[in-house]
Amino acid sequence: MISAIKRFLIGRPLKSTELGEQKLNKKKALAILSSDALSSVAYGPEQILLVLFTISTVAFWYSIPIAIGVLILLLALILSYRQIIFAYPHGGGAYVVSKENLGVNPGLIAGGSLLVDYILTVAVSVSAGTDAITSAFPNLHSYNVLIACILVMFLTILNLRGITESATVLAYPVYLFVLALFILIGVGIYHIVTGSVSPDLHAPIGTPVTGITLFLLLKAFASGSSALTGVEAISNAIPNFKDPGPKNAAKTLMAMGILLAILFSGIIYLAYYFGISPKVEETVVSQIASETFGRNFMYFFIQGTTALILVLAANTGYSAFPLLAFNLAKDKYIARMFTIRGDRLGYSNGIIFLGVASILLIIAFEGQTEQLIPLYAVGVFIPFTLSQTGMLVKWIREKPKGWIVKLIVNLVGALISFLVMLTFFITKFGQVWPVLIFLPMLVFIFHRIKNHYEAVGNQLRITTCEPATPIEGNVIIVPVAGITHVVENSLNYAKSLSADQIIAVYVSFERKDEKAFEEKWKKWQPDVRLVTLHSHYRSIIQPLTKFIDIVEHKASESNYRVTVLIPQFIPKKSWHNILHNQSSLLIRAILLYRRDVIVTTVPFHLKE
Amino acid sequence: MISAIKRFLIGRPLKSTELGEQKLNKKKALAILSSDALSSVAYGPEQILLVLFTISTVAFWYSIPIAIGVLILLLALILSYRQIIFAYPHGGGAYVVSKENLGVNPGLIAGGSLLVDYILTVAVSVSAGTDAITSAFPNLHSYNVLIACILVMFLTILNLRGITESATVLAYPVYLFVLALFILIGVGIYHIVTGSVSPDLHAPIGTPVTGITLFLLLKAFASGSSALTGVEAISNAIPNFKDPGPKNAAKTLMAMGILLAILFSGIIYLAYYFGISPKVEETVVSQIASETFGRNFMYFFIQGTTALILVLAANTGYSAFPLLAFNLAKDKYIARMFTIRGDRLGYSNGIIFLGVASILLIIAFEGQTEQLIPLYAVGVFIPFTLSQTGMLVKWIREKPKGWIVKLIVNLVGALISFLVMLTFFITKFGQVWPVLIFLPMLVFIFHRIKNHYEAVGNQLRITTCEPATPIEGNVIIVPVAGITHVVENSLNYAKSLSADQIIAVYVSFERKDEKAFEEKWKKWQPDVRLVTLHSHYRSIIQPLTKFIDIVEHKASESNYRVTVLIPQFIPKKSWHNILHNQSSLLIRAILLYRRDVIVTTVPFHLKE
Repeated sequence: MISAIKRFLIGRPLKSTELGEQKLNKKKALAILSSDALSSVAYGPEQILLVLFTISTVAFWYSIPIAIGVLILLLALILSYRQIIFAYPHGGGAYVVSKENLGVNPGLIAGGSLLVDYILTVAVSVSAGTDAITSAFPNLHSYNVLIACILVMFLTILNLRGITESATVLAYPVYLFVLALFILIGVGIYHIVTGSVSPDLHAPIGTPVTGITLFLLLKAFASGSSALTGVEAISNAIPNFKDPGPKNAAKTLMAMGILLAILFSGIIYLAYYFGISPKVEETVVSQIASETFGRNFMYFFIQGTTALILVLAANTGYSAFPLLAFNLAKDKYIARMFTIRGDRLGYSNGIIFLGVASILLIIAFEGQTEQLIPLYAVGVFIPFTLSQTGMLVKWIREKPKGWIVKLIVNLVGALISFLVMLTFFITKFGQVWPVLIFLPMLVFIFHRIKNHYEAVGNQLRITTCEPATPIEGNVIIVPVAGITHVVENSLNYAKSLSADQIIAVYVSFERKDEKAFEEKWKKWQPDVRLVTLHSHYRSIIQPLTKFIDIVEHKASESNYRVTVLIPQFIPKKSWHNILHNQSSLLIRAILLYRRDVIVTTVPFHLKE
Repeated sequence: MISAIKRFLIGRPLKSTELGEQKLNKKKALAILSSDALSSVAYGPEQILLVLFTISTVAFWYSIPIAIGVLILLLALILSYRQIIFAYPHGGGAYVVSKENLGVNPGLIAGGSLLVDYILTVAVSVSAGTDAITSAFPNLHSYNVLIACILVMFLTILNLRGITESATVLAYPVYLFVLALFILIGVGIYHIVTGSVSPDLHAPIGTPVTGITLFLLLKAFASGSSALTGVEAISNAIPNFKDPGPKNAAKTLMAMGILLAILFSGIIYLAYYFGISPKVEETVVSQIASETFGRNFMYFFIQGTTALILVLAANTGYSAFPLLAFNLAKDKYIARMFTIRGDRLGYSNGIIFLGVASILLIIAFEGQTEQLIPLYAVGVFIPFTLSQTGMLVKWIREKPKGWIVKLIVNLVGALISFLVMLTFFITKFGQVWPVLIFLPMLVFIFHRIKNHYEAVGNQLRITTCEPATPIEGNVIIVPVAGITHVVENSLNYAKSLSADQIIAVYVSFERKDEKAFEEKWKKWQPDVRLVTLHSHYRSIIQPLTKFIDIVEHKASESNYRVTVLIPQFIPKKSWHNILHNQSSLLIRAILLYRRDVIVTTVPFHLKE
């Protein structure tokens, strides 16, 4: 039943050899890997205006130079990630680049930071998308959390179905969003050029503004650069591209950069020219759209695709998180289960973990995850800075042909990223301080996990030729609850193992039972020794483990091994299990984990 | 750690021999077994007035004859339960009485009905008490559900600590409540007698009322008799009384009856004389109290003890449910776990089940469980009717000395109970219909469970002398994941068992690994046969179970048994387990439940 539901939701299992067919072409890759970056156009420009608004609307003209700054940062990031793609054709990403060039700890900081960030991406963007949906249908508003959780589940299932399938589903909304914004920007500029928009709506560039400070401009710049989150996704995901991976990835990256630059500057320009102020109840994009088209079909088309892409932005997290987790798990910094490919060849455990973690975040914040945005942005610029610096070190160390140019590209990238990160810490410390706590904690946990895996490896490895201590003989203990076929079955098995001694153990709660049972036993199994234990506290486990400890202690002196043989009857239907005390499970767990005895379960299958 | 918390919450375990000390004297028994019945005084009179209010306030004088009817019903119930106590000294209760005299199905209807009812008792009375608390402290109002759940947890822990301890804690509030109401009634009557209350506040008895119907009077009577829920609790709990149990129980029952009669008629009379109308925002008891005392200390004392006893009314459920569940479980109609005495000699599983079920109900109804009251009342009168009828049959069948009087007592009880039940169905069908669905369902489930237990018993019982089919030999299969100490350890053990054949099985995901592994194996363990299985779908379980099936099929032909030996390494700290794929657990579960093979786990304890 469960497996049928699984088939229905995520499809038939794929053979390992079908991996190649799951790879992405450029068009699909652009759609699923850039939705995060492109969607930030929906809120990035607004972030800049919100900061400037604290001075006066006259200050809005500063959005133009700030936007130019953001575009320069974008250019630097795109160019330097392009270099990373070719330098690390098996999937660069901040973790790998930082680890190889700067050392383990910077790598882990970058990796841990991104790991948390992708969870935030999913939670934040799905919540934002849900807000957009429930703004359109206000009577759904009280179901915000539920809707967000359902959307996350939908994305999780889609990604469990496999990369290509999710790409096919997700490509349309992404391209529709790009198309919608292109039309908006085109028509807006046409209106401006034909002079149908009054040029008095905005203060001309260069108008003096009282009260403007460098701090404020930096804050506006940092806020605006939150539109660049997600540009690293492509460099992480090179293994998902069709061959030749690096080349295809680089082209996709350039295409994304160009699209992002056009959309971002278009929106900023229109907002400036139309003199739009940020409002609580209406987004900047919505204001531009209604200014340009009025509330007609095009307006709703733009709003609809915007809502959609905000949800889909989460998908970038789904593409990047499992790959990053795989890399960390391969290096033994997180649990090994993240390296396993699931039925559909995706790293299912990473996908499921991401889904569950973001649902928990959404529930914990009751769907109001906006407060997490600064945290999320700073969590992106830390790895940005680290990976750029890593590339810097690489060029200096290796000095390949034309390394000076490459060095300059990464140097500019590193400097601007560092500056943005610093600005976040200075201007929004109240919101980003948790990073300073959880990042060191994460790095500490990573090391603990690695230490554990290495300790285990050392203990399991067979290095010397010394043979293990031989087993001289076996003692078998059979806990019995009565004289039944189940016990008979177990005793027969014990006898067939040619053990040196078989001991049946009966735990009684009432003194008067003991004698009667011992006599019945003598008649039934005269050749098996019976030990009766009395339990004062109505617990089977306690007297039993005490007895086993004594036997084990004696046995180990002469290199005997103790096996506890647990008779267990298996009901025909699994719901019947709740009708039976699961003492055998408990006994088994306690014995295995706390004592050095072997536990054998002898099933007795009921027929009715 | 967990066991330390358990000790702290519920106390040290008690020996089975300490059971006698856990028994109740009459004073404590009255407190913990009658809180449900006594607390109904807080809402029973109001229920009558609410129905009469639908006609006019003139109709309020009818509350006096209706109250007399309720008192007659109370008398009949008390007298007939007194007879039940002596007839069934080991704990009568509707289930036992109905089953023995009317047959299995009436017994199960009575038992199932009460089982559900006790859960409702807890949910309803804790919710009512919470409402009383949050009415006093309105800023707690939004935490209603949380407070109710905490109260249920508190009661659960108290009852897990044992009967006497909970009785000690609960006795004070119950007696304080009785005292408070006695003072209220006394002072109220004093006011009336001294003439300080105007006699014009109420219509004299006998005033003609237009629009009054028999239907309405019956409805008012049925509503008022909801004050009698809980009177059966004592007859269920005779085993909890100090010796002589039946005599002490009978005395306690009489005391409860007298207290209940005095409080009920006192409140009804004062309400009538003061001409009090039920209000949404103030209870009738509160109106009487503020009329009598004004809002002084006594008023708050009455309100406070009322709130307290409403919460404690739930405790009757805690006393009766585990005993009823024990009786049903002893007869194999519900899971056997309800027969086990816990650390403190209470039937812990029943107590925990009751707590969890009522918390779920409270959460499901968001703390508004008033809608469940009619359901709960009808669920009481079904077993009332059945047990009275059962006693009737018993007297007719056995004809002991003076049986005619006894017969008449139970006949009156049965008739009135039946009438009340019928009235509920006629006047409140919209609220009580679920009983007609879940009672048959419950009875059906009871029978299914009994059938299962009997089928199991028959299959386990050793009846004939025919010996079990002998085991001719053993095949041991060891799934191996590599060449490690864990595997070595398991192979050594397998060899020591002198099995006829040992097969190591390796599941590979990549073709190219297979050859290399086979060669390494040949050098390492030349005397153990290795079988390599290739997994197309990256699943270990699937090829392994397929292989085991084949081996098992062959082995069973010649009466060989197959043992699967699973090497498992046990980390030193339990959190380490999440770092390792728990495939061995999964393999074990699948093999045990679906195939007829023996599963042995060979632990390898890590030292670091």
